[in-house]
Amino acid sequence: MSPRRTATQAQETRSQIVDEAAAQASVEGLEGLTIGHLATWLGLSKAGVVGPFGSKEQLQLAVVRRGAEVFRQQVWDPVAELPAGRRRLVAACERWMEYLERCPFPGGCLMTTASVEWDARQGAIRDAVAGAQRLWLATLAADAEVAVRAGELPPGVDPRGLAFEIAGIAMSLNQAVQLFGDANGGRYARRALERLTAPA
Amino acid sequence: MSPRRTATQAQETRSQIVDEAAAQASVEGLEGLTIGHLATWLGLSKAGVVGPFGSKEQLQLAVVRRGAEVFRQQVWDPVAELPAGRRRLVAACERWMEYLERCPFPGGCLMTTASVEWDARQGAIRDAVAGAQRLWLATLAADAEVAVRAGELPPGVDPRGLAFEIAGIAMSLNQAVQLFGDANGGRYARRALERLTAPA
Repeated sequence: MSPRRTATQAQETRSQIVDEAAAQASVEGLEGLTIGHLATWLGLSKAGVVGPFGSKEQLQLAVVRRGAEVFRQQVWDPVAELPAGRRRLVAACERWMEYLERCPFPGGCLMTTASVEWDARQGAIRDAVAGAQRLWLATLAADAEVAVRAGELPPGVDPRGLAFEIAGIAMSLNQAVQLFGDANGGRYARRALERLTAPA
Repeated sequence: MSPRRTATQAQETRSQIVDEAAAQASVEGLEGLTIGHLATWLGLSKAGVVGPFGSKEQLQLAVVRRGAEVFRQQVWDPVAELPAGRRRLVAACERWMEYLERCPFPGGCLMTTASVEWDARQGAIRDAVAGAQRLWLATLAADAEVAVRAGELPPGVDPRGLAFEIAGIAMSLNQAVQLFGDANGGRYARRALERLTAPA
């Protein structure tokens, strides 16, 4: 086996572990990640699960990065090429709602779970989660700011306040879907977003 | 020692355990509750911590009930005597925001943490958390409905949709306070609530 093949295999194993850990963490939380459970599920030894990362915390951080990456691929990448402003903001919000309604993780949005789980703790995981969330809200606020300056949104709109409200709608939709199984959530969320992003 | 005194003492011990467990759960989550940690903190044996409840799950359920009770005492009880309708809805929302900004639990709103932690699981704890959240949203929606019928809120307002949006604002404020330490959260939340509950 050539060194290159070995490196590719190692990369694949690492990726498989992160996939399974992300699925598990979306249900049980990042702290609920059980190396023993992952090892059984993946047919690896416990050392085989942790080894590629060096520590459980590094594995948890890889899961946070994966959560942010999947979110970006599904929510942001499809709209990134649109011109900055109201149109892209509205498209990103719609993608976000669809993401919450048909979440690729079995326990729902990994970043929502992680951000509530870690908000009262300190350390590298909290910092990674907070950083990803901050970046996303800043991205929305930036488009809102462009939209206000271009006269696409009313001049009274506070871009960061709007991002704060949109994030709330997303969290409430996540709760409606995951906790209540309430089919009306999507309608409530979209009606609220339409009102918040109504053209000037 | 009379049996009555013993019963009172047992009740006090039980209450102390729930207090400490609620504080810990607000930071670490309900699954993060460690009987060993609680025992050390309270100067009890592990059996002394679990015994009064019968099982760890029953202790967790007692913590959920405490979380809902503290919330009710601080948010709902002070406004419960107001006449039903817009005025009570607005007052309850303001109490809720204050509660999130100066939360009596060290890790922030226990019910928010528990509802995200348990939304992808099954069982008695999830049911208790979902039941408490549902009741609260239904309480807000009931006042909104009275307000719409009385002409205090515009006729186009959907009471359950309004409760959905208010819950989102609360979750976003909780995130601003707990995860971002963002001092603007309270202002964003109140501005959004003013707009949502503006008189007809």
